[in-house]
Amino acid sequence: MMSSDPPFHHIAIVGLGLIGGSIALAIRERWAASRVTGVDSPAVLAHVLGSGAIDRAVESVRELDEADLVILAAPVRQNVDLLLQIPSAAPLVATDVGGTKRSIVEAARALPDSISFVGGHPLGGGERGGFAFARPDLFLGRPWILTPDGDRSHAAMKRLSRFVTGLGATVTTEDAARHDRLMGFLSHLPQLTASALMEVVGTASGSEGLQMAGRGLVDTTRLASSPANVWRDVCLTNADAIGEALDLLIGRLTELRGDLARGDAIDTIFDEAARWRAELMKGRE
Amino acid sequence: MMSSDPPFHHIAIVGLGLIGGSIALAIRERWAASRVTGVDSPAVLAHVLGSGAIDRAVESVRELDEADLVILAAPVRQNVDLLLQIPSAAPLVATDVGGTKRSIVEAARALPDSISFVGGHPLGGGERGGFAFARPDLFLGRPWILTPDGDRSHAAMKRLSRFVTGLGATVTTEDAARHDRLMGFLSHLPQLTASALMEVVGTASGSEGLQMAGRGLVDTTRLASSPANVWRDVCLTNADAIGEALDLLIGRLTELRGDLARGDAIDTIFDEAARWRAELMKGRE
Repeated sequence: MMSSDPPFHHIAIVGLGLIGGSIALAIRERWAASRVTGVDSPAVLAHVLGSGAIDRAVESVRELDEADLVILAAPVRQNVDLLLQIPSAAPLVATDVGGTKRSIVEAARALPDSISFVGGHPLGGGERGGFAFARPDLFLGRPWILTPDGDRSHAAMKRLSRFVTGLGATVTTEDAARHDRLMGFLSHLPQLTASALMEVVGTASGSEGLQMAGRGLVDTTRLASSPANVWRDVCLTNADAIGEALDLLIGRLTELRGDLARGDAIDTIFDEAARWRAELMKGRE
Repeated sequence: MMSSDPPFHHIAIVGLGLIGGSIALAIRERWAASRVTGVDSPAVLAHVLGSGAIDRAVESVRELDEADLVILAAPVRQNVDLLLQIPSAAPLVATDVGGTKRSIVEAARALPDSISFVGGHPLGGGERGGFAFARPDLFLGRPWILTPDGDRSHAAMKRLSRFVTGLGATVTTEDAARHDRLMGFLSHLPQLTASALMEVVGTASGSEGLQMAGRGLVDTTRLASSPANVWRDVCLTNADAIGEALDLLIGRLTELRGDLARGDAIDTIFDEAARWRAELMKGRE
């Protein structure tokens, strides 16, 4: 990519897992002159410092004294706590990369004027978490949702958009409540379904039975290896939207259960599902 | 692969989709001297003949007069009808590749003595059906379940095992009822879950919303493009086992819905699911 005047000169990333780590690597490729500070546990920091992805390591958000951008990349509820610990002596922009947005957007309303917060959610991710799987092209061509809170932080929004675009992502803006409802269906429901399916099939089939499974089960349950700590926070901060999505799926499965001996009803659901699947895959293959 | 005396000299394949077509291609590679007759609609037959995968094409099972092996590779209930149409003048072995086994194993008990039937189910498949996606290595290293009916067809069972092993698959034997129950969980439940999930998420999100979905939804719903005609027959012939599996999943999702605000309950299901996922992936990566 071409170099250009960086939107931020000193970026702090709090939480160096798959997303935080990939942001650090992408900054290195895009704006080599920007300084990157990492915040995480000593074990993670030692590993990340060794890789050259960050310039400096600190163990607490309270030690961040010169950042002009702070990116919170821990689980959602930790991000909310960390947001309120950011030192506010100098003006800075703060954002997060959490999978739900209402809780942190609401919490940000209590921030001092020197901290301009805009929530964010890069869509992408990978099968496995952790810095070991981080890569600079993780966001390339993928949507990155920003959730500005009305007209607050207008200038911050513009700088953040330039930053996110520079990492290769496509910026989309969305209201936090609409984001959470949409993700309840697009992301949280598939995750919980994959986990419940894996648990039910594993318990019924046993380890030996699972060896007879084909590629269908393998694909359908790929998400079942997702980390509990990330998803606990997502569920707790989006329980209403996820509950609505779960209700619809439970209702559909219950209906299907009653229709197993009715060929035309089976045809209908397969035809509808195949039609939506084709919509989902538009522009992806 | 090394050539060896072929277990069958004239093989008829009824239904030249992904599975039937892949069997034809694999026979060509393994036993070039074996003659292959295809049975399907004129349009499919013209395409398959042109590819060189079969030697001869006929439009009806009733025209099969010299086969020593007949493989039924149509949807399950069609296979049951076709089985009873196979000419029985000369002794032959018959098998099928359907995803449920009880209905055809029961039907086979009415066959004349000249036809030795053993049910079969190659596990593998692919995202897309049809001869266009057939490939000779589809069965390589994958299980192929044979469901002998007690001590009937012992000699046929031995020849079929040699045939299936020659195609690269690993033979497993299973009782038809146990097969159907196991597949209710390992194959049919994931399929119906993927279809219901895709329908619910598509209806709630719309085409525009689906463009914001990440890789998680794409993987979890891969099966949603499966053909209705295949699955209608699977549901109709395994409704009891699938119903039992659906009940367990609906129960787990309902429990989960009540636990969304309880972090420890979310942790439990994610930890259990990740443990079973690791079991599923043993020896696959």
